Formats: sequence, C-alpha cells, structure tokens
Amino acid sequence: MEQKAEKLDRPGVPALDEILGVPFKVLDDGLIRVVDYMGDDQAIVQAARVSYGDGTKKTSDDRGLIRYLLRHRHTTPFEMCVLKLHVRVPMDAWRQWIRHRMSSTNETSTRYSIAIDSAQTTAPDQWRIQATDNKQGSDGWVEKGLGEQLTRDEAAFQNHARELYNQRLENGVAREQARKDLPLCTYTEAYWKMDLHNLLHFLSLRMDPHAQKEIRDYATIIGQEIVKRWVPLTWEAFEDYRMGSVFYSRIEHEIMAAIGGGNMEQAIAIATEAGWLKPSKKGGFIRHRERDELAGKLKTLNLTVPWE
Amino acid sequence: MEQKAEKLDRPGVPALDEILGVPFKVLDDGLIRVVDYMGDDQAIVQAARVSYGDGTKKTSDDRGLIRYLLRHRHTTPFEMCVLKLHVRVPMDAWRQWIRHRMSSTNETSTRYSIAIDSAQTTAPDQWRIQATDNKQGSDGWVEKGLGEQLTRDEAAFQNHARELYNQRLENGVAREQARKDLPLCTYTEAYWKMDLHNLLHFLSLRMDPHAQKEIRDYATIIGQEIVKRWVPLTWEAFEDYRMGSVFYSRIEHEIMAAIGGGNMEQAIAIATEAGWLKPSKKGGFIRHRERDELAGKLKTLNLTVPWE
Amino acid sequence: MEQKAEKLDRPGVPALDEILGVPFKVLDDGLIRVVDYMGDDQAIVQAARVSYGDGTKKTSDDRGLIRYLLRHRHTTPFEMCVLKLHVRVPMDAWRQWIRHRMSSTNETSTRYSIAIDSAQTTAPDQWRIQATDNKQGSDGWVEKGLGEQLTRDEAAFQNHARELYNQRLENGVAREQARKDLPLCTYTEAYWKMDLHNLLHFLSLRMDPHAQKEIRDYATIIGQEIVKRWVPLTWEAFEDYRMGSVFYSRIEHEIMAAIGGGNMEQAIAIATEAGWLKPSKKGGFIRHRERDELAGKLKTLNLTVPWE
Amino acid sequence: MEQKAEKLDRPGVPALDEILGVPFKVLDDGLIRVVDYMGDDQAIVQAARVSYGDGTKKTSDDRGLIRYLLRHRHTTPFEMCVLKLHVRVPMDAWRQWIRHRMSSTNETSTRYSIAIDSAQTTAPDQWRIQATDNKQGSDGWVEKGLGEQLTRDEAAFQNHARELYNQRLENGVAREQARKDLPLCTYTEAYWKMDLHNLLHFLSLRMDPHAQKEIRDYATIIGQEIVKRWVPLTWEAFEDYRMGSVFYSRIEHEIMAAIGGGNMEQAIAIATEAGWLKPSKKGGFIRHRERDELAGKLKTLNLTVPWE
Repeated sequence: MEQKAEKLDRPGVPALDEILGVPFKVLDDGLIRVVDYMGDDQAIVQAARVSYGDGTKKTSDDRGLIRYLLRHRHTTPFEMCVLKLHVRVPMDAWRQWIRHRMSSTNETSTRYSIAIDSAQTTAPDQWRIQATDNKQGSDGWVEKGLGEQLTRDEAAFQNHARELYNQRLENGVAREQARKDLPLCTYTEAYWKMDLHNLLHFLSLRMDPHAQKEIRDYATIIGQEIVKRWVPLTWEAFEDYRMGSVFYSRIEHEIMAAIGGGNMEQAIAIATEAGWLKPSKKGGFIRHRERDELAGKLKTLNLTVPWE
Repeated sequence: MEQKAEKLDRPGVPALDEILGVPFKVLDDGLIRVVDYMGDDQAIVQAARVSYGDGTKKTSDDRGLIRYLLRHRHTTPFEMCVLKLHVRVPMDAWRQWIRHRMSSTNETSTRYSIAIDSAQTTAPDQWRIQATDNKQGSDGWVEKGLGEQLTRDEAAFQNHARELYNQRLENGVAREQARKDLPLCTYTEAYWKMDLHNLLHFLSLRMDPHAQKEIRDYATIIGQEIVKRWVPLTWEAFEDYRMGSVFYSRIEHEIMAAIGGGNMEQAIAIATEAGWLKPSKKGGFIRHRERDELAGKLKTLNLTVPWE
Repeated sequence: MEQKAEKLDRPGVPALDEILGVPFKVLDDGLIRVVDYMGDDQAIVQAARVSYGDGTKKTSDDRGLIRYLLRHRHTTPFEMCVLKLHVRVPMDAWRQWIRHRMSSTNETSTRYSIAIDSAQTTAPDQWRIQATDNKQGSDGWVEKGLGEQLTRDEAAFQNHARELYNQRLENGVAREQARKDLPLCTYTEAYWKMDLHNLLHFLSLRMDPHAQKEIRDYATIIGQEIVKRWVPLTWEAFEDYRMGSVFYSRIEHEIMAAIGGGNMEQAIAIATEAGWLKPSKKGGFIRHRERDELAGKLKTLNLTVPWE
Repeated sequence: MEQKAEKLDRPGVPALDEILGVPFKVLDDGLIRVVDYMGDDQAIVQAARVSYGDGTKKTSDDRGLIRYLLRHRHTTPFEMCVLKLHVRVPMDAWRQWIRHRMSSTNETSTRYSIAIDSAQTTAPDQWRIQATDNKQGSDGWVEKGLGEQLTRDEAAFQNHARELYNQRLENGVAREQARKDLPLCTYTEAYWKMDLHNLLHFLSLRMDPHAQKEIRDYATIIGQEIVKRWVPLTWEAFEDYRMGSVFYSRIEHEIMAAIGGGNMEQAIAIATEAGWLKPSKKGGFIRHRERDELAGKLKTLNLTVPWE
C-alpha cells in the first residue's frame, strides 16, 4: 500500500462521545451504557483499502465501499472497530448473551460480592402465551385477571427468594453457596466488549423477531441507539443487506427461474425431483417444510406457487 | 433431555476409515490425507436434539433435521464434528489457508529442520492471464510459446533459489536466516484440525470460483473426497443450501416483489429512491454496482429488468 | 517432514472406550459421560514431531517429549486431541463453566423444552461458612442444627419455585418466560467439546482449591477419571508440571539467589528497592502482599525469610 | 456493583496520542505505527473492580491491583484494552506473527495489488551462524569475507527474483500466479489489532531470546516503545512478573525444599525416585533433561546441586 506514515489525530465519533456513560434504561431495572469504543466507519474503509488496494479504487466513495463489503460478506474490516458496554441484565438473558464467545467479559462475581438486590419483574399485561406454531416463542398476552394473579405470585416468590438469600448470609453461609437458589432473573452487571463484525452477527440474531423479547430489547437499543450513532454508514448497510435479507437455496433459485420464465411444468419437475411433491393418501401432498418455506417466499414476491 | 446414560460404542464412519492415511495428490507435489476425525452426521443430530429437545420431534428423520439446521444457519451442532488432516501445500497457498483462525495447526518449522526441497512448478499450459474485470482473478491461459518460456524461467529461478539456500547452509548460516529467500511456493507440511462448522465456512469460501485455483484445488478435494464420505447428509445439504445459494437484500427483494406483481413502475420507483437510477450526462444511468448486481440476478431468474 | 503416507488404522484408547457413555455421578443429581474423543498421547507426539522435526530426535521417547512440551508450555500439539462430554450440572456452576470460551456447546433450551425437574439440594452437613481471609471462598461447615434448618428451608423454597413454574405453564405462559424465576441451581444438560490444551487450562483453574466446590467436583472427575484414562502420559506430566507448580517473579528470584548465596543484606536491599519494606508507624513494616507471598514460599522451601 | 451511571469523557493516553501514526523503523525497510487504541491502565482496574467488587478494596491503589492481577494470571481485565497497529514486515516474519490467532488482520493482497518492491536485505556483518546446542537458534556471526559474499549473492538473487516477477506481469500473467516465486522475505503491510492480554502473551514469546531476531526486533519495539507508553503500570508489572519469571515443577520444588532444609540425602532420594539419576555405564548419570534444567536453576540461585 505504501501508506503515508505521518502523525495522526486519534479517530473519534462526536455523536457517540455525547452519550458516553449515559445509561439507556432496559426492562424494569436494566441498563446499557457505552464505556468506550475504537474506530468508526472510516476505520473500516481504511482496513479494506489496505487489503484490496487498487481493487477498491473503483468504489469511489466510502459509503459505497462499506455497502459493498457488507453485501459481499467481507468481514475482517469490521473487526477493526470495537465497542465496550456496561450492562445490567437479568441472568437468564445473560445466559443467552454470553453464548456469543468472541467477546471479552467481566461480570460481577457473587462469590466476591453480595448479589444485586433486584430481580426482573413482570407487569400484569406482560405475561406472554406459549406459541403453538413455534416451539420456542410466545404469541400474545394472557388476559388481565390472570396477569394480575401471576404478577402477585411473582412478587411473593421473589420476596421469598430474597429472604432465603439474606437469611443464609446472616447465618454465615458462604456467598458462593447462599446464591444457589436466586431466581434466574436476578440482575447482574458486566463490562462487555465485542468487535463490530461479531456485534453485527449478535444483533442479526438477537434483534430478530425469533429472539426472546428480553434480550431483543437490549439488542435493539444497542443497534438503534448506539451502533447507529457510532458507525452510521455501516448501520445503514446492515439494515439494507442483513436485516430483511432473504436467502435462496440452489433448488429454490432454479424453481424461481422456471417460474420467472413462465415454465410452470419445469418448476414442478424440479420440485418433484427434489422430493417436495410426494402425494398424500388424503389427497394433496405430504407435508414438506422446504416446499412450504418457498411457497411463503413466492407469495411475498407476488409470484405464482406452481403446485397450489 | 433426560438422556439414557448407558455404555456406548465409539462412533465411526467406515467410508472414511477406508481412506484414513491415504494421500490424495494435489498440484504437482502436494497432498492431503485424513489423519483422524471425530463425529459423523449422527453426532450433529444428537447435539441438535439436546438443544432443541421436543422442538426437533416434528422433523421425523435425521436427514430432514440436518437440512433444516443448515438451511437456517444453526451452526453449533456442526462444531461437534472435527477433522484432522495432514497436508503438503505451497507456502503461498498456506498463507491464505492459515488466515482461517478457528483451527489448530502444527506446521513443519524451517528453523528446526531444513526446508522441503520442492517448490511448486507450473506447466507451460498452466500460466493464467490477469483478469481485467476482476482485480483479484485470472482469465484464460497465455499462449503456448510464452508458457514454455515462463516455465523455463521458473525452473532456472527455482534452481538459483535452491543453490542459494544450500550454499548458505553449507556456509554455516542459521537455518532461520538461510530460508529468507526461499520462493513463496516452496512446499510446507502441516497437521491441521478444524471443526465441521468452520470447515464448511472454509469450503464455501475456498471452493468458490473466486478463490485462487491453487487453494481451490485443495478445498475441492477436502469437500468432494473427504467431507462427502465423512458426513454425506451434511454434504448434500451443504451443496443444496450453501453452494449455489443466493442472497437478496431488502431493497432487491422489494423490487422483485414489484416485478412479480407486474408493477414495473413501482419497481423503478424503489430503485430510484435507493439512488440506483441517477441519469448520466451521456444518457442512460450512472454506473451503479448494486443495480448491476440485481440486473444479473433478475436475468438468471428470467425476470424483466425494469430499467433496461 | 517427508512423512510416509500410507493407510492408517484409526487411533483409539481402549481404556477410554471402556467407559464411553457410562455416567459418573456428581453432586446429588449431576453426571458426566464421555460421548466421543479424538486423539491420544501419540497424536500429541505426532504433531510435535511434524513441527520440530529433527529437533525432537534427541528426546528418545514419547513420554520424554510430552513432558518436555508441557514443561516448556508448548501448547499447539495438545490442541490435536479433543474430548466431547455429556454433562448434567446446576446452572450456577454452568455459568462459571461456560466462561471458558474455546469450547463447543449444545445446551438444552428451556425455551423449547420444559426445564429439568431437579434443583441441586444441600445436605445438612454441607452448608459452608464464608471465609474471612478469602473473599471468594468458604471455610468449614455450619453447625448441625443450623444445617438442618437451612436444608429444610431450601426444600420448602425449591417446592415453592417448582409450583410457581408449573402453575405458569398450566396457565399457558410461554416457557421462555415461565422459567424466569427458576433457582440458579436448577440442573441443565449439555454436550460440551473442548481440545486438550484448553481442557488442561480449564482443569488447572477448576481443580484448584480456590475454585468453588461444585465445579471442582466436576473438574476432578474429568481429570482423575477421564483425562487420566485417555492420555495417561499427558496427565502424569500435567500433575508434575502444572498442578503443584510454583512461579517466581524476577524480583523473587533475585531475592532467592541472594539468600541462596548467604547474602542476606543483598536480599534485604533488593526487597527494599522494590518497596516491600516500608516501615510502619507501629513498628515492623507496612503490609505488603508480594512480600508476604514470597515469605510463604520461602518457608515452604525451608529458606530463611531475611526480613523476619 | 451498582455503578454510578453518568456522562463520561472518553479515556485517552496523551503519551500514546503523541506518537499516533508516527513510524518506528524496524529492520532495513520495515515499520510499526500505532493507528488507534482503546483503554488504558485505568480500564483494566475498572474491569477488575466490577468482577471482584469488594474483593478489590484491600488493594488500595490501582498499581497494586494491576500487579496483583498480572502476578496471579487474572487475564480477562487485560482484554478490555485493544491496540491497532500498521506494520510493514517481511513475509517470513509475518508467517510467525500471524500464528497468533486471537487477532484481527487486514493484509495487503498481492492478488489485488502488485507486491511491494522491497525484500529484506542482510548486511555483511548480520549473517548468523547455526547454533549447535539449540536446534532452532543462531549463535554468533560469520566472518567478514564470507558475510560480504553472502550479501552480494543475496542482492543478485533478489534482483533475479524481481526481474522474474516483473516479466511475468509484463507478459500478462495474473498477479496471483506471478507472485508465486517471490522470496519469503518480501515485505508486506497490514493493519493488525489485538487485545492487551493476547498482546502480552505475544510479547512474552516474541521478545524472548529464543524468538527469531527479526520478529524479536518488532516485538521489542511494540513492547518498549508502544505498550510502555500506553499502559505504564501494566508494562512495569509485565517486566517484573512475566519477563524473567521462572516456573518450578512440583518435583523441582520438593527438591529445593530439601536443599533449603540442608537435607541433601532427601533431595537425592526425590531425584532418584523421579528417575533422574540412572547410572550410566561410563560412570556418572545417563543424560536427563529435567535434571539438567534444575541444575541450571539451582546454580542461578546459588544453591548446591546435590548430585554433582
């Protein structure tokens, strides 16, 4: 690259500096604050240009290059930016959060310190009903009277839990053991650091409608309030290319090409060969997940579903 | 999961056991051999079922579950399988290979041992021409006479390099310093271990037509000769859903939906709003990469390009 | 290395095959089982020899080479071995466990499935007292009558917790939300995979007397019952060089050399220069952690503490 | 921790800001520049205090806490600091460098761009002799006349290499193929990012006298010129506890305790039981590496070697 090598000023992002340390509230008693960061949109461009050199010249501007990188899943330049947060989050959401391994974490230890005296509570209108079509999700809210009862029971139970914990401590039981029956939703705090590439992956999974509401609330604030201020060009590209992006398999693509060419017979032949159209004894076809997934996509695209 | 806990036999894959240790030749003097492995298709299913429990019951068979996991980018179950290879590869291809960080590697040290006396050679009909439309690639082969000249020059140079190296050693120069002018294409050997999730990612990048031919030759053998024997259901799913798969961005998808619904005006309006259709002074539109990329996809799908 | 490249039999460890799938009981209702593994002591030797080539010839036998590698903290050859376990463990121990990031994990999801109906219980004689000299640890057990009371309270609380969970589920609350108040010590299950290098690091931290008893119980079984059978030479070296090993800083080493040479004045001069011997107003020295740590080590070595 | 949550100023290190972008020269044509960084000594303290809470109160000051963390190998707080460098380095040193996987890298691609027209050259007095007692190292320099000859041969060869590369390019050969015979010591450039924990590990290996001189020159500048300015308290602790630190195995420690207590017979008994003192047919003992290593350490400590 034969870079100019001269004294630099440290890169900074005034829009992010403005909110440094300022807490965003999440759930009933959670928070997120930016503690520090490294890099900005320009740092991504800089890293890409050292890699691809002349290959990036065609892309006249930084915005175009960032969009190109994200669209084509070039990931390493995004690793050059790093975000460090202070979070306060219920342990059960934290259990999901910490599964993202490419991060650095320092969490409050309840061996060293007394557990935070706060567990997440649920308002009467926030109790969610088990979804029937989605094993992992929820769908709607329970009716008012039941919600009120559930909230009262929750409060009584959390009082019981805290009394138990306090009595153990008062009786001299070691903190590491006294904590064993704390409710999963007890709040914990941590510093958490992640590079932008891994953070975008985290956000694409945790802002997704399939993510659990609690962690989704955190992820949405990280995305909409923090990353958007920090690296606005990257965020725009992320919204355009990752969120709302759709992925078609080879088979799906071949069927779509047949439909696009008006050749429904060929479309059906491809689906048949793929084993998607096995007749059911009751008439129609045997249930087939991939076929149903494509049918859903075709409807979104206003294209005819050949086998319906 | 409340798993049964009983004596197990160790999982094995007879089709892979048959080729354990047997070298596949690559390039003029390279090789790949399977040294050991852990897991099989069934191990992926087992790991998924512990995670998703009852959620996997709907998927009646293992093949369906593996295809579901790969289609929906559930990655952790694939980490439960591990492959260990012995490879012999030119150092310049190895430089690309080793960039995949989630691996374990033990490479021959040319500090401890004398460098392998073999550098990759190029046959007269294998000299590739610089591509003009793709900064990183090649396109076709040079003509015969020139190819013969290049191969002669290569041989003379590699002889020079080897003599230089040997003379340094004979003069007592330390191996770590004597090696400094070896050609990049000098062969090296290594044991290399990677889990299946990361291996599929490696293969999706390195079997891609945009990958350099040399590493693509290695990746293709790993995929077609080794992974296919090892985890045949996963390989089939990989071919169907990862290779030949196509991503559409939110904007692309919206334009396609408009085209699918026959509403070309809306399609053009979306593209215009996205800044894709800025008029050029010479007539037509200013060059725009995303627009051209979608046009290419639409043609593959036999759909009309609204702005052409 | 110019390896012979010939058909291999797959490496196996009969002593480990014998216990494959067999559960080791841990705590009141936990377990550990070996599900699969890759490699053995010989695989470590093989990887080291490819790296160091002729450099390993002096080490005539495999045991000597493995001991050399472990003593000198050569880590990559140990990555060539992999262990996969099925574990059943209280979530609060699991929270510590999962902090070791270089692993692959599939844990039962309590979004997809109902939580395991078992929480770790504590026998009356197993309630530990908070240590006073060690903020994170415990020291001795509470007296009998108190222990019995604590165990009764634990049982009553865990019943309350289970009833609450079941009532939520019966009332149609989504599993992902119903679980929020489960006690931290509720059992979970997982498949967990780690390479031997990282596993030894895990064991050195989690078998340590400072580790919490619960996870130490698991780690001890993994070490003593599993790793010892799997890679006996490595385990022996680990016990000799990592467990019970002691590390001396440059300053400590210099002070010891002065003591060894009988030069107590020099020893005191070094300690003084390091700021270890600042006089206290009450006589003696101001408290200094490093000084006290070295004094402890010197006593173990039967060497005179120069400043006492 | 119940942290105060208020507007923060972004942490910065004026001593490092002063050299931001300024190149340090390395070797004949290499360089290192700081491009950006995150965190400082205070960030390490902050992360440790959130983890250990009240447990850190005893350590009254930041310097003491950082020294405690480093001495006791608490690693995660050091991950909270990140350094980003621009480096220019010969590819053969880079091959060693990039083996440290926990980093982010963007290297100039010689597929996209023409290779840098510079290969590392060796002055006549810089040709090192192969060490005889250390398979991987060098020991002293060759005599003047030979050095001059080696330098002339190097220059001639590097000219040959460059001509070959240029001719291939002029003949239209693809860059990705033309580069195949470049000397290993051809310079490359990269942006390279690593957290402080991993960086200290990198430095402890690469500043070590056993590291190859070329990469040691880079590591020494990173340590002495950059890390020292950036996190001076951590650097001081690193020099005191990691560099020049010595490990003793359990066996070594037991032998030293016997020597310390003046009990030479016991020392010899322990060594004998460990198999260190097998008689040789020629008299004396059979060669034993561990025994010789301890003998060396004992001499440094001015302690008697019991078996000599």
